[in-house]
Amino acid sequence: MTLKVYLSGEIHTDWRDQIMNGAASLGIEFDAPVTDHAASDDCGVAILGAEDDKFWHDRKGAQMNAIRTRRGIETADVVVVRFGDKYKQWNAAFDAGMAAALGKSLIILQPEEHDHALKEVDAAALAVARTPQQVVQILTYVINGTLPS
Amino acid sequence: MTLKVYLSGEIHTDWRDQIMNGAASLGIEFDAPVTDHAASDDCGVAILGAEDDKFWHDRKGAQMNAIRTRRGIETADVVVVRFGDKYKQWNAAFDAGMAAALGKSLIILQPEEHDHALKEVDAAALAVARTPQQVVQILTYVINGTLPS
Amino acid sequence: MTLKVYLSGEIHTDWRDQIMNGAASLGIEFDAPVTDHAASDDCGVAILGAEDDKFWHDRKGAQMNAIRTRRGIETADVVVVRFGDKYKQWNAAFDAGMAAALGKSLIILQPEEHDHALKEVDAAALAVARTPQQVVQILTYVINGTLPS
Amino acid sequence: MTLKVYLSGEIHTDWRDQIMNGAASLGIEFDAPVTDHAASDDCGVAILGAEDDKFWHDRKGAQMNAIRTRRGIETADVVVVRFGDKYKQWNAAFDAGMAAALGKSLIILQPEEHDHALKEVDAAALAVARTPQQVVQILTYVINGTLPS
Amino acid sequence: MTLKVYLSGEIHTDWRDQIMNGAASLGIEFDAPVTDHAASDDCGVAILGAEDDKFWHDRKGAQMNAIRTRRGIETADVVVVRFGDKYKQWNAAFDAGMAAALGKSLIILQPEEHDHALKEVDAAALAVARTPQQVVQILTYVINGTLPS
Amino acid sequence: MTLKVYLSGEIHTDWRDQIMNGAASLGIEFDAPVTDHAASDDCGVAILGAEDDKFWHDRKGAQMNAIRTRRGIETADVVVVRFGDKYKQWNAAFDAGMAAALGKSLIILQPEEHDHALKEVDAAALAVARTPQQVVQILTYVINGTLPS
Amino acid sequence: MTLKVYLSGEIHTDWRDQIMNGAASLGIEFDAPVTDHAASDDCGVAILGAEDDKFWHDRKGAQMNAIRTRRGIETADVVVVRFGDKYKQWNAAFDAGMAAALGKSLIILQPEEHDHALKEVDAAALAVARTPQQVVQILTYVINGTLPS
Amino acid sequence: MTLKVYLSGEIHTDWRDQIMNGAASLGIEFDAPVTDHAASDDCGVAILGAEDDKFWHDRKGAQMNAIRTRRGIETADVVVVRFGDKYKQWNAAFDAGMAAALGKSLIILQPEEHDHALKEVDAAALAVARTPQQVVQILTYVINGTLPS
Repeated sequence: MTLKVYLSGEIHTDWRDQIMNGAASLGIEFDAPVTDHAASDDCGVAILGAEDDKFWHDRKGAQMNAIRTRRGIETADVVVVRFGDKYKQWNAAFDAGMAAALGKSLIILQPEEHDHALKEVDAAALAVARTPQQVVQILTYVINGTLPS
Repeated sequence: MTLKVYLSGEIHTDWRDQIMNGAASLGIEFDAPVTDHAASDDCGVAILGAEDDKFWHDRKGAQMNAIRTRRGIETADVVVVRFGDKYKQWNAAFDAGMAAALGKSLIILQPEEHDHALKEVDAAALAVARTPQQVVQILTYVINGTLPS
Repeated sequence: MTLKVYLSGEIHTDWRDQIMNGAASLGIEFDAPVTDHAASDDCGVAILGAEDDKFWHDRKGAQMNAIRTRRGIETADVVVVRFGDKYKQWNAAFDAGMAAALGKSLIILQPEEHDHALKEVDAAALAVARTPQQVVQILTYVINGTLPS
Repeated sequence: MTLKVYLSGEIHTDWRDQIMNGAASLGIEFDAPVTDHAASDDCGVAILGAEDDKFWHDRKGAQMNAIRTRRGIETADVVVVRFGDKYKQWNAAFDAGMAAALGKSLIILQPEEHDHALKEVDAAALAVARTPQQVVQILTYVINGTLPS
Repeated sequence: MTLKVYLSGEIHTDWRDQIMNGAASLGIEFDAPVTDHAASDDCGVAILGAEDDKFWHDRKGAQMNAIRTRRGIETADVVVVRFGDKYKQWNAAFDAGMAAALGKSLIILQPEEHDHALKEVDAAALAVARTPQQVVQILTYVINGTLPS
Repeated sequence: MTLKVYLSGEIHTDWRDQIMNGAASLGIEFDAPVTDHAASDDCGVAILGAEDDKFWHDRKGAQMNAIRTRRGIETADVVVVRFGDKYKQWNAAFDAGMAAALGKSLIILQPEEHDHALKEVDAAALAVARTPQQVVQILTYVINGTLPS
Repeated sequence: MTLKVYLSGEIHTDWRDQIMNGAASLGIEFDAPVTDHAASDDCGVAILGAEDDKFWHDRKGAQMNAIRTRRGIETADVVVVRFGDKYKQWNAAFDAGMAAALGKSLIILQPEEHDHALKEVDAAALAVARTPQQVVQILTYVINGTLPS
Repeated sequence: MTLKVYLSGEIHTDWRDQIMNGAASLGIEFDAPVTDHAASDDCGVAILGAEDDKFWHDRKGAQMNAIRTRRGIETADVVVVRFGDKYKQWNAAFDAGMAAALGKSLIILQPEEHDHALKEVDAAALAVARTPQQVVQILTYVINGTLPS
């Protein structure tokens, strides 16, 4: 069995690398949004021309990023969404909502402090993990049927 | 033409009443989540029995609320999602993600201060409004074709 | 808000009546399989002619019942599946699987003794209730937002 | 023609091996749930942490297994569901219901003694087999067009 | 429970009237193709202008009829397809294929002499009836749960 | 049989009125875009605030109109698209493409001079009409089975 | 561009070989039903056991063949259905109906004498061919853009 | 990440080659309609026989081309639609409508002079580009996350 896994959400720590390295032997096809924050914010105007109004500057960028993120979610078997300590992270919750509506297997990776605020998101998930290692263990179990010793 | 409109998001101000009153003559069928915060938090354990662990207390409630909210979103023509000044509001962004994935017409109602943080959500919307009155005007235009004088 | 609720599963006790009576004021459209056991078993041959082989006798009946049950599940917003004390009840679990795959809100009504055996079914449900009264309370909350006092 | 076949149900005999060995020359991609009973029961708490309440212990495990089983069913062309002699086997019937709702070709593998109890499940199937060898013969015929001599 | 039933196929006997009269008390919404043979053949050219080539004459008519028949099938709960004694009746088999692909409950009404030739069509049906009265009895059972006495 | 018909395309002549008046006795539920050209162009900025850049002025309006037009097309049984003598009319062809992809019955109303340029659009339609009266005759035939005398 | 093409219908002449040989250089993945008439008729009872009643003999076989034919149609880009000179060929028309409902590109291969009887089927097709060579030419054009010289 | 990109619209300049050459290192699978104008116009009659009436001549060709174009759009991740300076280009707008209805990521490539006339089409797009180079830059960013320096 092979899996396609999309890694959505927080882009300021190395959690994606931890998961991809930990799961390197499983043959998973990983996908993720562009994680270069500056490029992600400015891609729209950098390619299609500047905007005077920050609202449309953001719109151009967000729509360009959507080409990548929507495809990533739509073609995934499993969507992992990480909520970090900072920022609003509404795009993470938005991705989780899309994944849920599309019937994807959803894994939420979050600190306990967010449990109450994320209860509606967690209720749509098949697992709520606390560490990238746990996500690796879940993926290992799903593919190989083996538990951590 | 009739419309079904689901009013998602912030539950601490009277924005839903403003929209429903303002649009009273349009024949719209409005739907919304349970907006009694305490009932919404405790419905699961109040009906199905107490939980020692707050995580499962929340899970039971969130899943019970999902019976109502998912049906509300799935049967709507238009989903209005309001982001307020406080709280994480990840459930609002989650609802917006579901609505987008289901192809619903999405209207976001938000203060300007959230524009950058909501850019991915707004990029999936057909309108970004600042006031409930603007939402009423949009619904009036969509149904009657008339603009505010 | 109106709801369509399909009541699947055990047909030897009056649980459906308890729910329909308890929820009589909620404007719900209830649907259910034919609960006359003898008619349900023999409908195929009674109408379309006898079969020598019990296997095809059963097939004719099961397919005729499927005209009703599949439509009931497909058009429902909420599917309640009751597991009783006796019999194999594979048709109940089959209905639950159909409801889950179709994205219906699933409520399982079961005694605690079946919890382990039903864990995969329960994991796809939004509520696991123990009594018909709890189902009435859930439906009341979903429609009116009010909890039992 | 290649086929993807998911082998659902009973996990205490070697029926899966019999089918996979018998069909080894057909180029089929087989998939199945985790068949290590203990791992399957405890995967949730082994990875994500212990639960005091057996109900949630089971829920965590069942949801983790669902990541694998739902993908297995959703991507299959043919779903074979085996009902054995023991246990409730509601998860097998649940899988059959999902497969039917998703339009998969369903093959049921069961002893005759269950014929009446499985009549609704069988009525959704394209074949009811008694032995793993018959399943191999069906798959051989479907792929190569050849019948057993 | 209400049902929408589409009556497809043979248009030279009064079988539709027999079913509609026999089922008059059941509250069914019946639909059917245009059964005026001449109008059905010539509708395209009568409205949109004559064609020199019979092939396009037929095409114009068949496409105009498709506006009605496809909607009838797509919105039906149950599709009854009658095969009579004469003509090729490929449109009847085509309608049955559409109904099967759309997941409709299919009832075939046919004389025994066609059993072998219709085996693939029958295999997708939930009932194979011989008389319009049997179809009425099936519909009565599906809606009321009562069998003919 | 009732029908929902969406009237898309050219907004400078009274063709919609001709069809709605001509078909007044058929019980059809008609829907259409906002046909007040000025309101349609300016609705976005009139409600949500002015834009310096004409491109975003247009975007705001087009997205607001999409709330109405997409719902109109998605809920229709039949989509009539009229191409007139003037303007680019790319929105008409865009609506036709949406209707085709959604499996709607498509009727194109156009002058002969556009036949070659519209050949791809016409190839997805079930009828190509030249006059509003022909559309009325088609709808009359589809609903009543009667041809013009 | 690669294509998957399903060749449905008449099994008594070598038209499939003509198409597959003629299109050998195009990289098409062809699929077809089992064309061994005796095997196709008897596969059900040969594998799963004899039936006294010819009706169920046929049912077992038709359902086993459906495992192959439905997958062939569902995964195809193009479905070619050939109607020959003899037999009822309702299964061919049934396959065409399934292909049409699933939005497949449909090519009908038929003699002119069947034009009127097949008008509803042809009206759902993108091409009506008279010879296997024409089908080869169509597939060549679709893939390479070249016409026969 | 790999992408499938369909290049729809104007066929008289080398914009497709510019994009395919510029994006040659990205591993994209490109697809497009037949761009030989004469072949595209005459394919139907060249293969299936001449028509006296230009309307049916065009119909035969347009339907044959639809085998290729619809598959191209349906299997694409990204659909780029170019509007040029000349011709009606309704087929381009039609393709954009299909792509939008199917949830494809849509990029419109157009000169500024068409901005107002294309506002409904652009409103469904994730990017509006002015040059093939910008499309190459978008695809580069979507796949590699790098912006033009």
